[in-house]
Amino acid sequence: METDRMNGMTQGGPVAAIATAPGPAGIAVVRLSGAGALGIADKLCAGSRTPPSSRPGGTFGLYRLKDPATGEFLDEALVLVFRAPHSYTGEDAAEFQVHGGRAAPRRALSALLAAGAAPAGPGEFSRRAFLNGRLPLDRAEAVMDLVAAQSDRAARAAAEQLSGSLGRRTDAAYAALLALCADVEATLDFTEEETPGLLPPERFAARLDRIRADLSALADTFREGRLLREGALVVLSGPPNAGKSTLFNVLLGTDRAITAAEPGTTRDSIEEGLVLEGVPIRLADTAGLREGESDVERDGIRRARDLATGADLELRLVPPGETPLPTPGPRTLLVFSQCDRPDAPPKVPPDSVRVSAVTGEGLDSLKAAILDRIGAEPAGAEGQGAAVNARHRALLLSALSSLDNARALYLSRGEEAAAPAAAHLRAAAESLGAVTGRAYTDDLLDAVFGRFCVGK
Amino acid sequence: METDRMNGMTQGGPVAAIATAPGPAGIAVVRLSGAGALGIADKLCAGSRTPPSSRPGGTFGLYRLKDPATGEFLDEALVLVFRAPHSYTGEDAAEFQVHGGRAAPRRALSALLAAGAAPAGPGEFSRRAFLNGRLPLDRAEAVMDLVAAQSDRAARAAAEQLSGSLGRRTDAAYAALLALCADVEATLDFTEEETPGLLPPERFAARLDRIRADLSALADTFREGRLLREGALVVLSGPPNAGKSTLFNVLLGTDRAITAAEPGTTRDSIEEGLVLEGVPIRLADTAGLREGESDVERDGIRRARDLATGADLELRLVPPGETPLPTPGPRTLLVFSQCDRPDAPPKVPPDSVRVSAVTGEGLDSLKAAILDRIGAEPAGAEGQGAAVNARHRALLLSALSSLDNARALYLSRGEEAAAPAAAHLRAAAESLGAVTGRAYTDDLLDAVFGRFCVGK
Repeated sequence: METDRMNGMTQGGPVAAIATAPGPAGIAVVRLSGAGALGIADKLCAGSRTPPSSRPGGTFGLYRLKDPATGEFLDEALVLVFRAPHSYTGEDAAEFQVHGGRAAPRRALSALLAAGAAPAGPGEFSRRAFLNGRLPLDRAEAVMDLVAAQSDRAARAAAEQLSGSLGRRTDAAYAALLALCADVEATLDFTEEETPGLLPPERFAARLDRIRADLSALADTFREGRLLREGALVVLSGPPNAGKSTLFNVLLGTDRAITAAEPGTTRDSIEEGLVLEGVPIRLADTAGLREGESDVERDGIRRARDLATGADLELRLVPPGETPLPTPGPRTLLVFSQCDRPDAPPKVPPDSVRVSAVTGEGLDSLKAAILDRIGAEPAGAEGQGAAVNARHRALLLSALSSLDNARALYLSRGEEAAAPAAAHLRAAAESLGAVTGRAYTDDLLDAVFGRFCVGK
Repeated sequence: METDRMNGMTQGGPVAAIATAPGPAGIAVVRLSGAGALGIADKLCAGSRTPPSSRPGGTFGLYRLKDPATGEFLDEALVLVFRAPHSYTGEDAAEFQVHGGRAAPRRALSALLAAGAAPAGPGEFSRRAFLNGRLPLDRAEAVMDLVAAQSDRAARAAAEQLSGSLGRRTDAAYAALLALCADVEATLDFTEEETPGLLPPERFAARLDRIRADLSALADTFREGRLLREGALVVLSGPPNAGKSTLFNVLLGTDRAITAAEPGTTRDSIEEGLVLEGVPIRLADTAGLREGESDVERDGIRRARDLATGADLELRLVPPGETPLPTPGPRTLLVFSQCDRPDAPPKVPPDSVRVSAVTGEGLDSLKAAILDRIGAEPAGAEGQGAAVNARHRALLLSALSSLDNARALYLSRGEEAAAPAAAHLRAAAESLGAVTGRAYTDDLLDAVFGRFCVGK
């Protein structure tokens, strides 16, 4: 990107994007950032007595936006003025608070592009914030998690991370590792007479193990993190007319799927989100598993099988009269459905559930069994202040492996292993540093920020 | 509502709502307005050196929002401070620019409600703006139109109205009517000796007719306005396997509907929006009209018939080999489909279209015929600067009817009809005044603002 230095910040070329979600609403925000942003803002506010560029940063005013090319009135907008380095990106920036909906923000964005801004790529504002040292990588990722959070628990975990909790823990481990490393290396820098003595292996091990325990606990939050971020995919399966769509509707509390006495009613599989005890679930209803009578139905059944294979949990419905396959795996829960019917089995195997979507019997047990199987902690559990993502986990595992190498070397060979052990400790510290982005590559930034939405 | 007077504005109790559309996005805005708004804002910003209430209006700052009850960190947010009367509502107000998505704005809103704000009803901010004289009714309606605009033309028409174009025209007519009324009434206020003379009937008629022509032209923009606001509902109908879903996909340029050689593939009707020459269209694909083989399909066919009955235009597909019913109405367009097939008729009746979704033949003619039938003006046509809605139209028609009464009375009976003619002119002026809300009732405000989204 073209850059410009100003107030100690790097300013990229001006970019603009709509930063609020699409849809009818009172307000939408169009964001503009980079060198010359305020001059571009002025072009849309022609005729005002106080153009944006003559406002102090941290203030806003009401403007009549006009298309700079045609002079056509676009909208009334609040324009917020940010001056480097006091903005999200650290650059000069402006925000246009226009009316919501589809058309008004698009028209304002078009006018900004015509006035000289380039369209911002996904995550471009956050990437600039990172490059200007205003947003460590772990907090940038927390921003994305917060935006994507489907449940209150997910939002709480993301807010924790946004407040810096993960970075503080990895920074502390980073510092402890470098200190340990320095003590190990101290034995190398001195002559034999003045050596302060070798760091005793048991003290080395104790310090390393404390760091190790904390990093290991952090890495273990990954499963919880994945559940909170992505939600668990729970798929309803079973023979036609087992009551899958009916149970789907009852669990969602809506009338989403068409239900009918006729077998094979559902063809396209339907997925909807719900939140159980703060845990987001993606619940999918599928075509009944039978020899399909038509191409369309057979296609639906094939898709249903694929979906169940990749699910976190398959709820396999067993209607009265059917006998389930023995020993389903831990990711399959047998659900004996329609238990209000006279021919329903009065008893069901342990680890399975008996429900009636008509009377509501067994629904609470079903919900509890779902949460149990997908491994979600109960709602009241204290958060560990972190729920790491796949990138963090990979870095933590790499750090743990380096620690194990350092430990084995130092304990087995003592002083003569000090140099290679120290190198492993440094490697572990480097992995940790990458969590917050002390070290980064363009590929890493592409991977992290490419997953952001445009406008963030 | 509880009220409070301050700076000449009426302040209602504090209300809050999310003002941006739901969905993953960089930014969401939560709006707070009313007496005590800034004190409530302070509660979420505990611990900051410059709480919102000590900021000047027109400025913003970055705050760490915390839940006032638990102290839990919620989000980092820009907080914008507005001081009465310099806000949208005319009240003290604050806006919280939090991270987008589902959870962050909800958490901020919950905290505001816990801190003493009430949830804002639909359109409540705009209603307060109207009551404080900051937003005439026609411009408030334009805000709603702009938010709902599905096409650039609709947005342009709404922006015109937001800039006051409709209000200026009705205000001008209002003033002209009152002036005419005064001249008519002047004959009543004088004794016989000093009377300035009766306003000659032909001068009366000329002045009235100029006003009448303008109001009549305004009322005529209603159809255009309805099309721009709501879009035209265009329904695809016809026998099974006529190629409805295929044509639907081709017109949308997507692969939305499942298509298959098997008859009766489509069951649920599917509606999608598209924009033809700037005119929004709601295009619906329906189940094929035949004697359904199953309950599910019969249900789909019944719904398809209902949909076609209420449509602005029915595209009735006629596949090769079928003979259409004679003389469909003007709201039915016969579309001879699959014209690439060898058995397709080489010629079709006038006023019908021949298309092939496979070769693309006839698609442009079909689009032109759709626009022609629904009565949309071509894209290049100059806007009349207004496109009135149903409420405006009713008021305009009422005003026109009063003008006609006044005209008939004055021309037939002259001076002795001056008083009743003037009364009709006043009634017409009152109708016009209601366009901008010079006169209003609570019921009217409920009707107008109840259609707004929450947060506007």
